[in-house]
Amino acid sequence: MKQDIDRLMEQANLDALLVSGSATHNPAMFYFTGNVHVNYGDLIKMRGQDPVLFCNPMEREEAARSGLQTRNLAEYRYNELLKQTGGDIVQAVAIRYQKMFNDIGLTAGRVSIYGKMDAARSYEVYRALQALMPEIEIVGEVDNPVLSLARETKDQNELAHTRRIGAVTVEVVGKTAEFLQSHKAKDGVLVKEDGQPLTIGEVKRKIDLWAVERGVENPHGVIFAIGRDAGIPHSSGNPEDVLALGKTIIFDIFLQEPGGGYHYDFTRTWCLGYAPEKEQKLYDDVRQVFDRLMNQEIEADMSFKALQDRTCELFEEQGHQTIRQDPLIEEGYVHSVGHGLGLDVHELPFARPPKAMLKPGVIVTIEPGLYYPSQGMGCRIEDTVYVHADGTIEVLAEYPHDLVLPIEEA
Amino acid sequence: MKQDIDRLMEQANLDALLVSGSATHNPAMFYFTGNVHVNYGDLIKMRGQDPVLFCNPMEREEAARSGLQTRNLAEYRYNELLKQTGGDIVQAVAIRYQKMFNDIGLTAGRVSIYGKMDAARSYEVYRALQALMPEIEIVGEVDNPVLSLARETKDQNELAHTRRIGAVTVEVVGKTAEFLQSHKAKDGVLVKEDGQPLTIGEVKRKIDLWAVERGVENPHGVIFAIGRDAGIPHSSGNPEDVLALGKTIIFDIFLQEPGGGYHYDFTRTWCLGYAPEKEQKLYDDVRQVFDRLMNQEIEADMSFKALQDRTCELFEEQGHQTIRQDPLIEEGYVHSVGHGLGLDVHELPFARPPKAMLKPGVIVTIEPGLYYPSQGMGCRIEDTVYVHADGTIEVLAEYPHDLVLPIEEA
Repeated sequence: MKQDIDRLMEQANLDALLVSGSATHNPAMFYFTGNVHVNYGDLIKMRGQDPVLFCNPMEREEAARSGLQTRNLAEYRYNELLKQTGGDIVQAVAIRYQKMFNDIGLTAGRVSIYGKMDAARSYEVYRALQALMPEIEIVGEVDNPVLSLARETKDQNELAHTRRIGAVTVEVVGKTAEFLQSHKAKDGVLVKEDGQPLTIGEVKRKIDLWAVERGVENPHGVIFAIGRDAGIPHSSGNPEDVLALGKTIIFDIFLQEPGGGYHYDFTRTWCLGYAPEKEQKLYDDVRQVFDRLMNQEIEADMSFKALQDRTCELFEEQGHQTIRQDPLIEEGYVHSVGHGLGLDVHELPFARPPKAMLKPGVIVTIEPGLYYPSQGMGCRIEDTVYVHADGTIEVLAEYPHDLVLPIEEA
Repeated sequence: MKQDIDRLMEQANLDALLVSGSATHNPAMFYFTGNVHVNYGDLIKMRGQDPVLFCNPMEREEAARSGLQTRNLAEYRYNELLKQTGGDIVQAVAIRYQKMFNDIGLTAGRVSIYGKMDAARSYEVYRALQALMPEIEIVGEVDNPVLSLARETKDQNELAHTRRIGAVTVEVVGKTAEFLQSHKAKDGVLVKEDGQPLTIGEVKRKIDLWAVERGVENPHGVIFAIGRDAGIPHSSGNPEDVLALGKTIIFDIFLQEPGGGYHYDFTRTWCLGYAPEKEQKLYDDVRQVFDRLMNQEIEADMSFKALQDRTCELFEEQGHQTIRQDPLIEEGYVHSVGHGLGLDVHELPFARPPKAMLKPGVIVTIEPGLYYPSQGMGCRIEDTVYVHADGTIEVLAEYPHDLVLPIEEA
């Protein structure tokens, strides 16, 4: 949580954070600003002090909406610095940083950099700044950066945002089920009023529309994959595929609040009309493990890796191969039981490194699944949960887990 | 154009380009790959040779759709490198680059880096690679990078993409006009069937829907600003504002092809119902300058800056203040006549530095405007044009320039 930043900075021996770039679609900056339209800003947070956002005068009103203390970037007269350096952009920007640092009293110590931006700019500007200010040390945190560790647990405001995008998500999922069921089946596939088969591309287009109608973004697309594609976890589904009855459909949706805000992550597996025996068995196995994880296994403060191991055990008991037996398998349980989510759709904690814990405050997905591409099927069930301070595990948006969507014959 | 890259590399004394990151929403990578779903790749282009795309095996089929030569990133056994470096991610990634460079025969020379990515990663990894390979020189191009210079002129394929997104844009603009005109006026504002005033927020939501229905993205939002807001070029319009008759509305729309592809940029100024005298005069002045620029002033191979100067002259002849008289003015003609567009909505050429020329192959906007926030009005007219090899200037998507949208009284 944000309130942990000073402590985490101390642990990492950092004296200041420098976050740069756009406020939108830039998680490190959005974390401080929220959804405001600031195209470029530099945010400096010194340990034990409130962050300060430097921005252009044109965007000052927008920047102020963040509630942050703002300063005017124009006061550093970039064009004059550019003249002074003979047109050297890198030097001019570095000198501007030096002046900004001096103005807020950042004159020594370790300064860590954040933000999504042009690689050339980062490489040259921070090197130039380092050369200009040998009294500070510029640090690029790559492994568990302070801001990612802070973002690992969510405060009440972040929880409310996640609930809101979760509510929109299940609404869109409900619309999708309704839309599919408004079609009738002919010769084993869903058909439209004109008798032509409905395609996955058409379903996805509708999902995009329902998201936009609700004012949320779908920047990563959805997975809507049928049959063999459902058996391949990274397949997003072929837009030309028709909606055949009795095949598993994996529908994995991860919408985002506008401007690059919080995500919700959700998966259901559906069979249209009916489930053949092997599809039903696949679902029953996944459902059994899913229910077991949700109702018995998952506990606050447990290791996320232990939950992954337990998931593997449960699937192995059912007779499936798992990734812990062989990391290269492509059939059986082939991925991880879940991940944290927030401003990034995948963020801390992850179920892999042994040290990640399900601390109170984390928001994680629980998503066991089984994949048999050679048998033309796959199944995954995923809900997003919050770990409360009292240890309760709460699903943040409820939706039925049923496999079969009944379909009328034409 | 892509065919210029080798020549531009020679001019910049570069032996290789290294482009990293996602294929989507990452212009430097998208320029080579087009719209394929590759979450992470490293593309290396040596001078005089075809580019090679390194990607993960899971994304190899997608990567192959780019038509590029691909290599398997997994062959470099990152996990083993990570063990070898004692868990040092930066060193492991740097060693992987070193091995990749060696494998394609890049053992000396100047290597320039591109891509949108995490600042800390860029700063640390490229410094580590530089330390590891003193025989190469890592370069971050910040001022007119080779890839930006190449992208300044468009080939036939890029032109076709721009035409396509232009066609969608004018379709959406037509839908917007139709939607506004489907409402009646009551007490000087547009009202809905329930008698409540229509708001700008509702119009914007519709525009988003029409974009999604056509499978295109609207990542930057549109400007739909009325009255005083139309007088402030960077105001995107207040969602709560009602649609009052007789006020200038600036409608600036810049849609993008899916995945972070090509843009189209387009502006019309509308008055609903009627135009009062001062709004009509404002429009007439802008329209006169716009027509003059399009029909007489703009020429292939002229300096873009000269066109900006000419625009200032024309506005000054009409009695308006311009930005060349005083760069800080907020009323009159306060911005630049246009800019290049493509994978970025603002890219080379720009009308500011004296050297930018309207070379055959450029796609630029022409967008004169006048702003009088103190009088509650602003006006801009913008079309996107292509400069043909024979010197012809072609508007890439035609749409009427009329000011007044007739509205029925309720």
